[in-house]
Amino acid sequence: MNQRDSTIALDAMGGDHGPAVVVPAALRALEAHPDLTLILVGRPEAVEAELKRHGAGGGDRLRLHPATQVVAMDEAPSHALRSKKDSSMRVAIDLVKRGEAAACVSAGNTGALMATARFVLKTLPGIDRPAICTALPTVRGHTHVLDLGANIDSDATHLFQFAVMGSVLAAAVDGNERPSVGLLNIGEEEIKGNEQVKEAARLLAESPLNYTGFIEGDGIFLGEADVVVCDGFVGNVMLKSSEGVARMIAHYMRQEFRRSLFTRLAGLCALPVLRALKRRIDPREYNGASLLGLQGIVVKSHGGADVKAFAAAIGVAVTEVRQDVPHRISARLESLLVQEKRA
Amino acid sequence: MNQRDSTIALDAMGGDHGPAVVVPAALRALEAHPDLTLILVGRPEAVEAELKRHGAGGGDRLRLHPATQVVAMDEAPSHALRSKKDSSMRVAIDLVKRGEAAACVSAGNTGALMATARFVLKTLPGIDRPAICTALPTVRGHTHVLDLGANIDSDATHLFQFAVMGSVLAAAVDGNERPSVGLLNIGEEEIKGNEQVKEAARLLAESPLNYTGFIEGDGIFLGEADVVVCDGFVGNVMLKSSEGVARMIAHYMRQEFRRSLFTRLAGLCALPVLRALKRRIDPREYNGASLLGLQGIVVKSHGGADVKAFAAAIGVAVTEVRQDVPHRISARLESLLVQEKRA
Repeated sequence: MNQRDSTIALDAMGGDHGPAVVVPAALRALEAHPDLTLILVGRPEAVEAELKRHGAGGGDRLRLHPATQVVAMDEAPSHALRSKKDSSMRVAIDLVKRGEAAACVSAGNTGALMATARFVLKTLPGIDRPAICTALPTVRGHTHVLDLGANIDSDATHLFQFAVMGSVLAAAVDGNERPSVGLLNIGEEEIKGNEQVKEAARLLAESPLNYTGFIEGDGIFLGEADVVVCDGFVGNVMLKSSEGVARMIAHYMRQEFRRSLFTRLAGLCALPVLRALKRRIDPREYNGASLLGLQGIVVKSHGGADVKAFAAAIGVAVTEVRQDVPHRISARLESLLVQEKRA
Repeated sequence: MNQRDSTIALDAMGGDHGPAVVVPAALRALEAHPDLTLILVGRPEAVEAELKRHGAGGGDRLRLHPATQVVAMDEAPSHALRSKKDSSMRVAIDLVKRGEAAACVSAGNTGALMATARFVLKTLPGIDRPAICTALPTVRGHTHVLDLGANIDSDATHLFQFAVMGSVLAAAVDGNERPSVGLLNIGEEEIKGNEQVKEAARLLAESPLNYTGFIEGDGIFLGEADVVVCDGFVGNVMLKSSEGVARMIAHYMRQEFRRSLFTRLAGLCALPVLRALKRRIDPREYNGASLLGLQGIVVKSHGGADVKAFAAAIGVAVTEVRQDVPHRISARLESLLVQEKRA
């Protein structure tokens, strides 16, 4: 990577924990990626205090960039966009726009991040709406799901664009040149699904994408497709419900193992196995959602992310920078248009 | 319960296993509910063979009712409705219509069951669309969620009607006279949710129902409301995804416990605890979805239900019969209309 391509801006003030998580995560990412440079964007005193606590200072590979404002986690995106022009979030995105960073990562308010990124960076030609995409664990590995909440009431063309973006991301991240694409649908209606989904299925079937048909909710976690496409309302409910089920199961498991002395001993025996299980479905391993469809790379970390999780989100940005995901999306869209004209 | 009120018709041919599951489940339900009478509807030779295998015969409390046809699990609902007028499913519903049974239970094709039940029984006055409702486990107990796939593109009035039906069901089943009602929504959009959900929120806030606001997907399993209302497309994806996550976790758990001799021994120690956990989230305990909003009680069992699960679905029908759910829904709707006129 050259200088510009090896630099990522971090919104140091975003998320529930701000610099207390972002700074140590940055130090960890610098160790993991020897050719990486990071810019910590935020209030200098807060960031410097945190660096000091870790016995670290600025340097060639870790620069500070001041920003006086902070976007609150519950702030209206329009308010953030209008009145927080010197927020750590906005300044980090501005650095991407100006070419001083190849990507930015924020654990801040999702709505504000999406609105600001869209306003500053603009969407790629041929993309109407950006989408939020993340990898979810499956019994076979993982699958990329989008949109997870950037859009509601997506029409067939939007769903088709999501499929293109998700395919490019899966190809770039997993090195799988023809990722299979499934459309999330339900199996209960006679003429299955709504009009948008049915029309999107027609568009996908006619395209050169590796479209494999409808999949139902359980198919996501059974690994039935490499990319799963859905409207953002549906995707967001799916994502949050899945987190809720996993938390409920963990809650019940703790309760059952605490029931008596015997079950506590059994829990002790099973601890290494339960820890291994936890690692495999640990949402922190899957932290880092991509805002796809923009003229720039923006990665959203979970607001409550800890150091490990935020470092994983930086890792997502590193991969997207290396793979030049936005340009690959543009190129793919152009080649689809050329093929369409020939047809 | 009087004679008519203690009689439930079972679609003996429905589901993946037909009489092999329905007949033993019926015998189990008769033991559990001493004042219950069941009618097994299906091909007499198939049902009788199964009864014989269990050393049981017909009797006052277990009658046979012949039906020559069977609706296939993948048959188009319109085809079933048009050409299967002597199917076990249709005849079971006809028995409810004629007042010979107070409810029917089927593990057959959901679409065909819904279409047939709606055609034969009709919806209650004031209900535009029936909905599918089931109880899901939460960290606090359970919550009733509807619609799970009977309808797509539900508007605000439909969502409001689902809230009324779900409230009545929760009150009847749990003895909770003011169940809290949440509207499933997403938290990512600036002006949260789509137009239908926002308008439904207004209708619910003005109603005497115990409406407690929006909840997100994880809130279902954290037990944030007694009743959760959503469009059937969203609800179906939520339900199936949740099943998928639970299966994925179980798959990983098995893998981890089988990794080595040590983990196998740990699994042996933890087995009683893991079994207790399994019972608490066993989907078979939660089998039996209610088709609400009809002039009659229809309970849908999971197609792959085993004996225990199908018996649980019969139990759901018994409760709804005892609590006279359809009349309570009508009464509630009328009282809401009266209050609306006064207001």
